[in-house]
Amino acid sequence: MAGQEVVLNGNNNNGSLNLKPSSDDTRGKNIQCKAAVAYGPGEAFVLEQVIVHPPQKMEVRIKILYTSICHTDLGSWKAENEAQRAFPRIFGHEASGVVESVGEGVREVKEGDIVVPIFNGECGECCYCKSSVTNMCERFGVNPMKKVMDSDGKTRFTTLQGKPIYHFLNTSTFSEYTVVDSACVVNIPPQLASSLKQLTLISCGVSTGVGAAWNSANVNAGSTVAVFGLGAVGLAVAEGARARGASKIIGVDINPDKFIKAQAMGITDFINPSDEEKPVNEEMTGGGVDYSFECAGNLDVLREAFLSAHEGWGLTVVLGIHTSPKLLPIHPMELFDGRRIIGSVFGGFKGKTQLPHFANECIHGVVNLDKFITHELPFEEINKAFDLLIAGKSLRCVLHL
Amino acid sequence: MAGQEVVLNGNNNNGSLNLKPSSDDTRGKNIQCKAAVAYGPGEAFVLEQVIVHPPQKMEVRIKILYTSICHTDLGSWKAENEAQRAFPRIFGHEASGVVESVGEGVREVKEGDIVVPIFNGECGECCYCKSSVTNMCERFGVNPMKKVMDSDGKTRFTTLQGKPIYHFLNTSTFSEYTVVDSACVVNIPPQLASSLKQLTLISCGVSTGVGAAWNSANVNAGSTVAVFGLGAVGLAVAEGARARGASKIIGVDINPDKFIKAQAMGITDFINPSDEEKPVNEEMTGGGVDYSFECAGNLDVLREAFLSAHEGWGLTVVLGIHTSPKLLPIHPMELFDGRRIIGSVFGGFKGKTQLPHFANECIHGVVNLDKFITHELPFEEINKAFDLLIAGKSLRCVLHL
Repeated sequence: MAGQEVVLNGNNNNGSLNLKPSSDDTRGKNIQCKAAVAYGPGEAFVLEQVIVHPPQKMEVRIKILYTSICHTDLGSWKAENEAQRAFPRIFGHEASGVVESVGEGVREVKEGDIVVPIFNGECGECCYCKSSVTNMCERFGVNPMKKVMDSDGKTRFTTLQGKPIYHFLNTSTFSEYTVVDSACVVNIPPQLASSLKQLTLISCGVSTGVGAAWNSANVNAGSTVAVFGLGAVGLAVAEGARARGASKIIGVDINPDKFIKAQAMGITDFINPSDEEKPVNEEMTGGGVDYSFECAGNLDVLREAFLSAHEGWGLTVVLGIHTSPKLLPIHPMELFDGRRIIGSVFGGFKGKTQLPHFANECIHGVVNLDKFITHELPFEEINKAFDLLIAGKSLRCVLHL
Repeated sequence: MAGQEVVLNGNNNNGSLNLKPSSDDTRGKNIQCKAAVAYGPGEAFVLEQVIVHPPQKMEVRIKILYTSICHTDLGSWKAENEAQRAFPRIFGHEASGVVESVGEGVREVKEGDIVVPIFNGECGECCYCKSSVTNMCERFGVNPMKKVMDSDGKTRFTTLQGKPIYHFLNTSTFSEYTVVDSACVVNIPPQLASSLKQLTLISCGVSTGVGAAWNSANVNAGSTVAVFGLGAVGLAVAEGARARGASKIIGVDINPDKFIKAQAMGITDFINPSDEEKPVNEEMTGGGVDYSFECAGNLDVLREAFLSAHEGWGLTVVLGIHTSPKLLPIHPMELFDGRRIIGSVFGGFKGKTQLPHFANECIHGVVNLDKFITHELPFEEINKAFDLLIAGKSLRCVLHL
């Protein structure tokens, strides 16, 4: 019965997944459960009980089993862009879980289905969803300004005192339960249930990087690639390029510690700009790479990435987040040299349509997800997980809920 | 015999083309003929006798029959970019003519062939010429800084006093005779000889515009197009888009006089930014055009063109020349909206390979060349032709030599 409240011990970190929660106890009711609530920019997350309301029409309530942390959580938590500030808030957008219940009209998932939420939804109805060349979505596309549900402008989270807690990136996965629009839920083939922890990574980082190489750039066998910034997304680009058969994958980072991990991820050559006098496009590539990827969120790096691409056909794909109000560091006339530049969001993947197949490919070894999981912690240690990311020590720390 | 000099009355403006000049009199010798020499930035052209040396290895000497004037001539003659200054100089790069003689090793054209010179050559040997995706050429690509022949760093023009006269854009067509690298000569099918005057326009402007629509953007039937700047190149874009079956071709210009001509060239809708409060991407296009073309050489216009393209897939093609050292007026994050931007040089045409077929298409009515010829004058009135272009009164004024 709606409004009635059920208190759950959501800690499921006991080795076996509870993939079929007994929704009979919770369906249609408020759920009281644990969440990591941020009360202000950069303030430590408070692990506390919150109320998660039932899913409304075309919404899905998910029991989150795993979540990890991405730099976008970090930037928004720090509120680097003031316009995006909204507190209290539940961050988190890279996760996996199981459907607890669905709202009216939801047909594509049902209670007990394993799913990954996606921050860049797919309504299936808008001009973008109907186009084959873009993964934008008019209603449910990525929107860091959005803090409430699309249907009624309200939140599905409240404090125990009834105060609204804002949503983040259509997903808000730092909670034992969350409510998302069905456009932002990807059904994972049930035979992949035992790999749900690994599949958490396709919810954002790995899809963003691999997809940038596959969908946005269309890297092909034998081509040359440079990846600027060797965080999880950069390494996922490298992994995607490796899977496509790129002949040379140059990793560029000022942190030499990252090269050790990168060697296992398909990177064939390393450049530390602090050590080198020559830019990437010199001898190493014979005039420039076919594809360069900017995963650093730095304009100087963006320009270097652009110039590292081969004149005539080189393509630069921008994945980094650039918060300052600066212009592209490219002169209009430089476009006449035939280099191209594009942006890539969520790796160009149409999430609901394409991720089930991608999940299958990952679990069958086309892309190695395990290498990206450098740490695992219980959900309660989320602040420690943030510290690891800030210190550059983790690629992905998976939190067990 | 090399060094011997032949004085010719090159005026051929007598109604019938002399397509088979008697090269026996001139082959291997210096030719004295009339040229329009620029002695300083913006100074009136001096019509005077000059010496044109014989073509060296892999060079071709062309008897120019028609030449016209493009804005690139105008900008370089005014020496807007100081680094490009080189005087005395023979400008001109849009022309047609007949091969007078060829240097050692030239096989693809012979004496008497009708040809158009191209400023963006095609050596056929470099990595760009061997790639199917670019029309750059390592040795003979467009280069406004180049003022001498590639092989020996010397000029093939001298004054009667023996002083060198510099070349321009691989072509220097404001002369009764010129010498160009064979990489910059396009053989025109002989059956098109009677249309040589019209084919002068495929030497630069029409190819640049039509090719931008066909090769660079790949405009397809039913798509929507906006053209910013309705000079000859902008109208050629419109003509190319019309030929491809675009459903809507919006012309944008602050000069309403241009709309009259544009109506005959495929433009279906007009916007004068001085009159309108709304940008192009409002109601007229349902969220933006599929393809926008910046042909104005103005950064504000470039930004407007970029934003007029549809999010998710819209492509902006930059054709305008932007001389000031400014950056692209685009924020890196705007790339995430899925709009793309590229530059287009010579319409993406590989000149020697593709222009013979394009010439055929033009003469068979796919593209209407006649509409671009608004004026015709004898070569001697070249200064008047420049005045017409500066005043915005002509699209193309063809000079008869």
